Amino acid sequence: MASTGFWSREGENAAGNSNQSPSTPRAWCLAAQKFTGDLGSKLYALLNVGEGNKTASSATKKVLAASENCDCNKPCNCSKQNLDLSNLYSTDLLPASDGDLATITFLQEVVDLMLAYIVTSFDRSTKVIDFHYPNELLQTNNWDLSDEPETLENVLLNCRAALKYAIKTGHPRYFNQLSTGLDMVGLAAEWLTSTANTNMFTYEVAPVFVLLEYVTLRKMREIIGWQDGQGDGIFSPGGAISNMYAMLVARFKMFPEVKEKGMSSVPRLAAFTSEHSHFSIKKGAAALGIGTDSVICIKADESGKMMPLDLERRIVEAKQKGLVPFFVSATAGTTVYGAFDPLHAVADICKKHNIWMHVDGAWGGSLLMSRKHRWKLDGVERANSVTWNPHKMMSVPLQSSALLVREEGLMQNCNQLQACYLFQQDKHYDLSYDTGDKALQCGRHVDIFKLWLMWRAKGTFGFEAQIDKCLELSEYLYNKIKDREGYEMVFDGKPQHTNVCFWYLPPGIRYLEDKEERRRRLHKVAPAIKARMMENGTTMVSYQPQGDKVNFFRMVISNPAATFEDIDFLIEEIERLGQDL
Amino acid sequence: MASTGFWSREGENAAGNSNQSPSTPRAWCLAAQKFTGDLGSKLYALLNVGEGNKTASSATKKVLAASENCDCNKPCNCSKQNLDLSNLYSTDLLPASDGDLATITFLQEVVDLMLAYIVTSFDRSTKVIDFHYPNELLQTNNWDLSDEPETLENVLLNCRAALKYAIKTGHPRYFNQLSTGLDMVGLAAEWLTSTANTNMFTYEVAPVFVLLEYVTLRKMREIIGWQDGQGDGIFSPGGAISNMYAMLVARFKMFPEVKEKGMSSVPRLAAFTSEHSHFSIKKGAAALGIGTDSVICIKADESGKMMPLDLERRIVEAKQKGLVPFFVSATAGTTVYGAFDPLHAVADICKKHNIWMHVDGAWGGSLLMSRKHRWKLDGVERANSVTWNPHKMMSVPLQSSALLVREEGLMQNCNQLQACYLFQQDKHYDLSYDTGDKALQCGRHVDIFKLWLMWRAKGTFGFEAQIDKCLELSEYLYNKIKDREGYEMVFDGKPQHTNVCFWYLPPGIRYLEDKEERRRRLHKVAPAIKARMMENGTTMVSYQPQGDKVNFFRMVISNPAATFEDIDFLIEEIERLGQDL
Repeated sequence: MASTGFWSREGENAAGNSNQSPSTPRAWCLAAQKFTGDLGSKLYALLNVGEGNKTASSATKKVLAASENCDCNKPCNCSKQNLDLSNLYSTDLLPASDGDLATITFLQEVVDLMLAYIVTSFDRSTKVIDFHYPNELLQTNNWDLSDEPETLENVLLNCRAALKYAIKTGHPRYFNQLSTGLDMVGLAAEWLTSTANTNMFTYEVAPVFVLLEYVTLRKMREIIGWQDGQGDGIFSPGGAISNMYAMLVARFKMFPEVKEKGMSSVPRLAAFTSEHSHFSIKKGAAALGIGTDSVICIKADESGKMMPLDLERRIVEAKQKGLVPFFVSATAGTTVYGAFDPLHAVADICKKHNIWMHVDGAWGGSLLMSRKHRWKLDGVERANSVTWNPHKMMSVPLQSSALLVREEGLMQNCNQLQACYLFQQDKHYDLSYDTGDKALQCGRHVDIFKLWLMWRAKGTFGFEAQIDKCLELSEYLYNKIKDREGYEMVFDGKPQHTNVCFWYLPPGIRYLEDKEERRRRLHKVAPAIKARMMENGTTMVSYQPQGDKVNFFRMVISNPAATFEDIDFLIEEIERLGQDL
Repeated sequence: MASTGFWSREGENAAGNSNQSPSTPRAWCLAAQKFTGDLGSKLYALLNVGEGNKTASSATKKVLAASENCDCNKPCNCSKQNLDLSNLYSTDLLPASDGDLATITFLQEVVDLMLAYIVTSFDRSTKVIDFHYPNELLQTNNWDLSDEPETLENVLLNCRAALKYAIKTGHPRYFNQLSTGLDMVGLAAEWLTSTANTNMFTYEVAPVFVLLEYVTLRKMREIIGWQDGQGDGIFSPGGAISNMYAMLVARFKMFPEVKEKGMSSVPRLAAFTSEHSHFSIKKGAAALGIGTDSVICIKADESGKMMPLDLERRIVEAKQKGLVPFFVSATAGTTVYGAFDPLHAVADICKKHNIWMHVDGAWGGSLLMSRKHRWKLDGVERANSVTWNPHKMMSVPLQSSALLVREEGLMQNCNQLQACYLFQQDKHYDLSYDTGDKALQCGRHVDIFKLWLMWRAKGTFGFEAQIDKCLELSEYLYNKIKDREGYEMVFDGKPQHTNVCFWYLPPGIRYLEDKEERRRRLHKVAPAIKARMMENGTTMVSYQPQGDKVNFFRMVISNPAATFEDIDFLIEEIERLGQDL
């Protein structure tokens, strides 16, 4: 029932192997052969077969023909090889008895699809995105859920379709978010994590992963600079939740009775963060019953850094109004400008006024791994808590976000409810490894293995090299456009992180004298170019307004696959797509 | 540096192929051959090679020897085949130029490991867990993170170690949690999700997955019984967060000013849930600034169902004290007893008092898929919100939890902050598909694909069959032990869900007349048996006290791999391990 046109595999079937599904050992021999030679275009063709596209179909033929020059490319005599997935259903897979071969065949087919996708992801001749509008994608496909099962062949076609329309987030020219790139070791670790399919709440059900979280959090605290890596922490489902945890723990530290009595037992609180900070600070305050009005936005300077003088002034002012300042969130790497708030100055103020100091290093925290750039976070060791998302600048697959807390035991006291059906106190092992009661979550996804395995594979120096390279690329971009005709920088001076914020002014706007008209038209340039980028599928980069500044491009580089040439390409592409605007 | 004894692969290397890493196409031919014949014991041996265990090593030899009867088991002439992972590092993988073959080789090695793990997971002759105490696991292994990188061969050894000590959550005799089982289609979908490595916040970066979430949530709402599947919802990182969302939205619905003004603008609130409900209701109240004291626990009857009379009494009482009742959480499938609160009676009371009715169906919601059992949730269609975790009874890989909300738009209004750098209002597509601002999270892991793909593969009827079978198994267990010598049921009557709660009384306790002494000793029986189960690795089942009831076993069945024989085995094992206590 899912066999709409472009999901069918007629291209492959037409390629001289019409009666044989490309599965089983022999198929893998074949599949692997495909990857020698001129990889990208062939695989791209493979992924797009059956779209009614003659070229793709003939490309596939070529690929299969090319595989002929391998000795092992002949029918295998294995007795069970010719499993036909078009006659099989999920009930034929394990745990069905004798489901082993069907399972291996099916999973290997999925792996082959993924390997092809991965290889093409890094091929610059392929598109970053095969864009379709939502209604188009909904209407031209059958995504419905019905009562009856589908064959495994159709399930594979569903997988193929999902990858066909996916954004290639590992593509060297995908710059759209703070999280980009596809790390091969991280990916392997994610596959393994899914296979282990367990839950972080107790040592009992996740012994290795709980220990790896312990080891990794300690290492991260050492890098922050807390003595002997002491303290606490947790991996949470993203930076917004990590920031919310920080606020939660800070409130509990000052008013432990809030856990039982709620906010009605607590004076009116005030939290402080810069006007450039991430929206999760306000979101957290709304959720925790503190209210967004109690988040006081501190002025940032031209380059996006929080101004300590304004912070202190607003703290004093809040106290005068009868509010109790309890939380300052400094940002290490703001979302748009990539600015680092002056942490020592913030720490001095927090110390003076006895306020919890949080550092939202979701984006910038990873610079702690770089001997060249970690000075930008000087003072982070004085924070009470730090958010650090390895899934951003360290290219760990989503999701990987840690909250680190300097005081040990606080998270446990703040969140624990000692459910006796999960955290039994009479277990036979050391219960300090049952870390689940620290969390707001009950079940908690295993996010640790990919980071740990990548760290083993790269070493701290490997992460450092990766980060330094991204910063080098952004400096290259900055130098390239800062004096280039048709570009204006959003703020002066070299960016501190990989964020390069700029306007591109098409010739038709460049010399406009009417400032209002110029603003009005410039505001539409970035969205128009972005739409064309997506329709063309050649690259993706983000844009936004900020304060009174009209839409500008925010280029960020966190993808280790990007090169100087990709930066050049981005500039050429912006100009190609935008010159007529 | 990670090459401690049991991580080495000497067993394999000794097996006639000492100079060739089992990678490349030929290796896959070889690997696949291993799976024919008597799978389980061979693969188990493979996974355990190098432990200094002569048997394992010779078993491996046999496996490799057995593969000789395949024609394709001869050296392959592919030019690049002999990649030696012991000389390669992560920097040799993509995006390195020419990294394609190393990447495919490395990933295929990981896949081979996983396939072996998967097949052994379903083999009853293998252990559920190879248990080690935390200190032992920490001290006898090197899990440390250092500056220098490791070779890809060592990375593979790390993967092997992680799987060696993992709990086999798909094992037919793993009954420890509400989430068990390993679904092959779900697993394939998770692998694919990791490969696509994107983020749910916008259509722009997750077009397919956003649409699939839309389709699936609508289908779930239809099944709940909301007209035309209308309403709202989100997939969240687990049931606890889904329940917290429900409470958050309920508070906002009654007092929208809370978002800006916080709890100081709101009267003292009261929430109601049964004494048997999940701890996440209190955890949520603590986090949201409502306070655990404001969660009023309603009496449950002997079988664990909330008593409506007590609910109404406590609501009236709260009002008299000046509290404002805003939220009732009824449970559909309690954690320990598997009880279903009487939803119609609760709905009547909520309607009368104008209180938000939430149904926590994290565990029991899936029974809506069963025509035979869905009556247990009659009245759910009257709820304002429903938590439903497909990662429990539907065996979807962790994490898969949905919150469904009857009123559309409420989640968006409650949580949105319209960050202009993410939810740009001048994009070129229909912005209603940018669903990220409904969430507390910013980045959000793609949890939808596995559920959607499993649904396609099984159809609703397939899920139904799976669920019905688990309930049948639990009825079998109940019938088997209810009158069996040495067993006492914790509550009378047939369980409504798959939870079977019982005491096993070893002969030495069975006839004790001193009731206090009997209680005291019985309390220690379940933990002692559980510890032995884990040390033996044969099975795992949970236990806990409840109220004034001493420790009892809570058997739950959500694993589609379990059979009547596994239930028989569990009983035999409890008696074998516990008879001397």
